[in-house]
Amino acid sequence: MTFVAEALGLTSSAVKRLEEKRILTKAFIKHPFFRDVLDALRLGRKFGGYEEGTLIAKTVEGLEIVSGYPKIRRALTLYPTIKKHFSGDVVLEEKMNGYNVRIVRFGENLYAITRGGFICPYTTEKARLLLDDTFFKDHPNLMLCCEAVGEESPFVPKDVYGIDKIDFFVFDIRDKKSNEALPIKEKERLAEEYGFKIAPILAEVHVSKAHEVAKDVIEDLGRRGREGIVIKDPEMKRQPVKYTTSTANCSDLSFAFRFFGEYGRDFMFSRIIREGFQAFELDDDERFEERCRRLGEAILKAMVESIREVSEGKRIYDKMRLRFYDLEVFELFKEHVKRMGVNAEFSEPVEDSDGYVVWFYRLMKSTTDKIDFILRGNLWQ
Amino acid sequence: MTFVAEALGLTSSAVKRLEEKRILTKAFIKHPFFRDVLDALRLGRKFGGYEEGTLIAKTVEGLEIVSGYPKIRRALTLYPTIKKHFSGDVVLEEKMNGYNVRIVRFGENLYAITRGGFICPYTTEKARLLLDDTFFKDHPNLMLCCEAVGEESPFVPKDVYGIDKIDFFVFDIRDKKSNEALPIKEKERLAEEYGFKIAPILAEVHVSKAHEVAKDVIEDLGRRGREGIVIKDPEMKRQPVKYTTSTANCSDLSFAFRFFGEYGRDFMFSRIIREGFQAFELDDDERFEERCRRLGEAILKAMVESIREVSEGKRIYDKMRLRFYDLEVFELFKEHVKRMGVNAEFSEPVEDSDGYVVWFYRLMKSTTDKIDFILRGNLWQ
Repeated sequence: MTFVAEALGLTSSAVKRLEEKRILTKAFIKHPFFRDVLDALRLGRKFGGYEEGTLIAKTVEGLEIVSGYPKIRRALTLYPTIKKHFSGDVVLEEKMNGYNVRIVRFGENLYAITRGGFICPYTTEKARLLLDDTFFKDHPNLMLCCEAVGEESPFVPKDVYGIDKIDFFVFDIRDKKSNEALPIKEKERLAEEYGFKIAPILAEVHVSKAHEVAKDVIEDLGRRGREGIVIKDPEMKRQPVKYTTSTANCSDLSFAFRFFGEYGRDFMFSRIIREGFQAFELDDDERFEERCRRLGEAILKAMVESIREVSEGKRIYDKMRLRFYDLEVFELFKEHVKRMGVNAEFSEPVEDSDGYVVWFYRLMKSTTDKIDFILRGNLWQ
Repeated sequence: MTFVAEALGLTSSAVKRLEEKRILTKAFIKHPFFRDVLDALRLGRKFGGYEEGTLIAKTVEGLEIVSGYPKIRRALTLYPTIKKHFSGDVVLEEKMNGYNVRIVRFGENLYAITRGGFICPYTTEKARLLLDDTFFKDHPNLMLCCEAVGEESPFVPKDVYGIDKIDFFVFDIRDKKSNEALPIKEKERLAEEYGFKIAPILAEVHVSKAHEVAKDVIEDLGRRGREGIVIKDPEMKRQPVKYTTSTANCSDLSFAFRFFGEYGRDFMFSRIIREGFQAFELDDDERFEERCRRLGEAILKAMVESIREVSEGKRIYDKMRLRFYDLEVFELFKEHVKRMGVNAEFSEPVEDSDGYVVWFYRLMKSTTDKIDFILRGNLWQ
């Protein structure tokens, strides 16, 4: 992997060690659909100034480094957290609930890179269809950091956005390699110029009032089933901070407890803690009572649903509707999912007026097996 | 520690290794109150056929091994679990909510050993006061396995039993060394003969009907704030199985989320999972709704209470009322608690008509610090 050594400025033995430790792993499947990429590896964790999920690619036009999207830290209370971390004005931007992809151009085509640093065939196909690539010709050093959102999502399908297929919402425009983000005004101007949708900018407000405005915004977003906000420095010089709605926390908990064999305890615990701090900051008695009910129901309904299904002899799975325009991409996606270690099944593709619809079943074997074990009368621990 | 080598039939270098690995550690504080014990060590985990919490003591009358109390496994559903693990009749015994101690006699005095294998000064003082030691003279090979229950408990204070101080309820009588348990009838007969209280025996029923009876028993216990049941083979040849009420699960969760910095995620997760299976097995719609509310409230109320207290500048602690008859034992208990690594503070003892009352504060530094950190506006992760 001499191109990685060259790209990162490392010795080849250092690269070899990274590979042995599985920090550096394959980032794509060689295929004509990815014809501009000769080879590509990804960083499985932060290394030498590069974020986790950084892609190092050898393309037809030379070496490329696409920096991983930085982890955004979380506020558990709006006050005094926003005030402490920003000064002057802040922008409250909607944090949409989809999956994070970076869109870049290599050679003649666009490529969509997931948070983990994989080139995703599903997302790449949609990016090529939906995004104007003249932006990338005009700005070869930039990448679009987008939320891929909609019902036809292989990772986070959501219907609250009124998007029945999938679409991209730009939240950052960054330098591919340095990861430096453009100021928000500049992002808006470029998005406007090239016709990109952006994650809604909900308010720009002085930091001294931001927690008050954020409180109303969060309440409104929660009512509408949305995920939350990212609080940003308009100049993007300070690190953004995120904060989520109770709706999102509970939706995460439902998901985690529906598939409790697959999901980690830390995932569950962190969402519950978020609810505790939000209750402390935002609730009166009535809202608190409603929150308790919502939390309990989010956890138990999902779990009981899974137990009931196994008791009826069913297996537990997550089910997503997907759409492909080229069946070769479907084949590629199947292979991609397999390499990610997902236990998946797919329906036969059915052609409609706009490509092929496929159902993607993600089998939750651990949840299924654990429930089955208990329902057969076995003891816990 | 040659006496341990002799007692367990090990070489002295094997014993040394156990000590180096901290599997074998000190089990008591040398003191005239424990005058019959010359030395004593405990097993921090299962080893060579001995349970975790086994005590190996060199006493004035020779070597003693007191086997650790075996872990009782848990049913997550009543049916078919009871049916699968037992045959013929089963006894449903109340699982009281206190702390497990084994009472033995060494030399001239009784000793109370906690689950972990420590000789506890607090419990020992009460055992000597409350339990008839002729039993131990008549049956030197036996130990009483008791739940120490009541309001004045240093570990699990509960007021649901109407015991304002502390009392002992025998649930097993076992051979000290072999850990073999007497049949339930034999336990009842001996308890009657020597005037010991026992954990209530709630039903004896054929295994084919046990889940139905247990369901009613659990519901009744839950309403009364009790912990649950232990399902036992009357002959005690099969391993007992436990099952808890929703009240107990939620009470555990309240405790864990009140002190969420101190308590493990596994502790929380396991209680939530219990509620899921119980909901599946026992609830109609109305009960399920009530359970969701109860679960959410158990979690959030406790957490918000802690957050609120820290926001008011308070530290988070657990507070227990204790009673000592001899102030020397209080001193000994303070040292005991310190050695257990508990961050404790005590009030000055106040004499009343029956000994000295002391308040025992267990400081929850991690919870306090975590909340304080967040409330100062710091970011999570």
